[in-house]
Amino acid sequence: MNHYKQKETIPYYMCDRNHQLTLSMLVNLLIEVSENHSALLGREESYMENLDISWIILRYEFKIDRLPDAKEKIEIETFATEYNKLFTYRTFIVRDNQNNQLIEVKVTFALMDHATRKMVRIPNEVVAPYAALFSRRIRRELKPHEIDKSQIDEKSYEVRYFDIDTNNHVNNSKYIEWLLDSLNSAFLKTHAIRHGIITFDKEVKEGNTVTSKVSKRLTDELFTDHRIEVDGTTHASASFKWTEKSEKGV
Amino acid sequence: MNHYKQKETIPYYMCDRNHQLTLSMLVNLLIEVSENHSALLGREESYMENLDISWIILRYEFKIDRLPDAKEKIEIETFATEYNKLFTYRTFIVRDNQNNQLIEVKVTFALMDHATRKMVRIPNEVVAPYAALFSRRIRRELKPHEIDKSQIDEKSYEVRYFDIDTNNHVNNSKYIEWLLDSLNSAFLKTHAIRHGIITFDKEVKEGNTVTSKVSKRLTDELFTDHRIEVDGTTHASASFKWTEKSEKGV
Repeated sequence: MNHYKQKETIPYYMCDRNHQLTLSMLVNLLIEVSENHSALLGREESYMENLDISWIILRYEFKIDRLPDAKEKIEIETFATEYNKLFTYRTFIVRDNQNNQLIEVKVTFALMDHATRKMVRIPNEVVAPYAALFSRRIRRELKPHEIDKSQIDEKSYEVRYFDIDTNNHVNNSKYIEWLLDSLNSAFLKTHAIRHGIITFDKEVKEGNTVTSKVSKRLTDELFTDHRIEVDGTTHASASFKWTEKSEKGV
Repeated sequence: MNHYKQKETIPYYMCDRNHQLTLSMLVNLLIEVSENHSALLGREESYMENLDISWIILRYEFKIDRLPDAKEKIEIETFATEYNKLFTYRTFIVRDNQNNQLIEVKVTFALMDHATRKMVRIPNEVVAPYAALFSRRIRRELKPHEIDKSQIDEKSYEVRYFDIDTNNHVNNSKYIEWLLDSLNSAFLKTHAIRHGIITFDKEVKEGNTVTSKVSKRLTDELFTDHRIEVDGTTHASASFKWTEKSEKGV
């Protein structure tokens, strides 16, 4: 596997009122690092454009010990772990400047054809430089939990002009803003995400109004389960595990 | 005057669908650069916190030849030009890697007391290291043009949890998103900002719903005039001068 590392200092504008990196900005940072990794291997945006394909993200899985603080120096390491005919899997590790692991993120990618906007089989020459393992089997991955329809909170959001990114899609980080903003301010101030799964099922388009639905689930641990819907159809789903902010290092 | 320079490569996540840096992300970048300048001079956030004061931004003036592209290397230079008993004035110059000037931004700052949330007189020791010129006179600065009440377009936005920044204010860049998103997609796709003035009159708070109003004004040149209102009170105003995107280097 070809590993790539990049150092960053977290700017203020990536942080929330608690001076911690937001999850949406974390995702922006990680995707930029994987773009830099790809460019180094000759698989930058223009290479993909010549083939009329681009990467789309289908799933994130986050494991968070601590989100870095404003002005903290971190290192992000990334490598493509495995691929099969339809999906590639990439891992990101975020470490502090003492080399302690803060965050691990696993991302599932697929290739979309620009003309049909459908998924295509992954050509070997596109993925070869990453030196990931090929597997015939498609991974079975944990999905977000069902939402509890008896106790849903929801908020609506119109897609904004600047939500559309350089790929002509609603940027991934915007879904995360919609997912989390559906929780109330008192909850977000006092709770930290420890684990999260987000799956992207269907593209949200310009002109759409999305409904961000959330329900809480308390077992031994506290979870929130989420759906992003447009006209009653699910476009993205998520489940997050939370702890209170007084606990363990946050 | 103490000058500070910082090089940046524009990441994809700061860009719009045209692969150009957005105005809201430009502002985030500039403010980060001025924070780094301040830290170098021993006037970082913690210094200000000990005095129970923080900088607030009252006004931006933008002169834009071209917004940088995704992955373009730029240099940002900044220096405090002048101050008086209430305001300080800072200039930012953005240049491409051929040293051509792309953008000039002038920013007016004031100091806010944390307890009263009111403006306070600027203590000499806070500004001394920047080596700006002291002036007894308060500058008269150009204000945004009146809005044309006969032809207003408007959109409403609820303040979101993550709109609040590390200073516990709605981040400046969020006002810019509200200002520009009030224009329709067809206009934004085909027009580029050449000049802009934004003034901040009154804080928008968490829980507020803002109305972003806009009217067009066509003289020899095309302008849009803007108001951000909460319950009928103006919280921010702006005027932008636009050209069509086919013209001159954009």
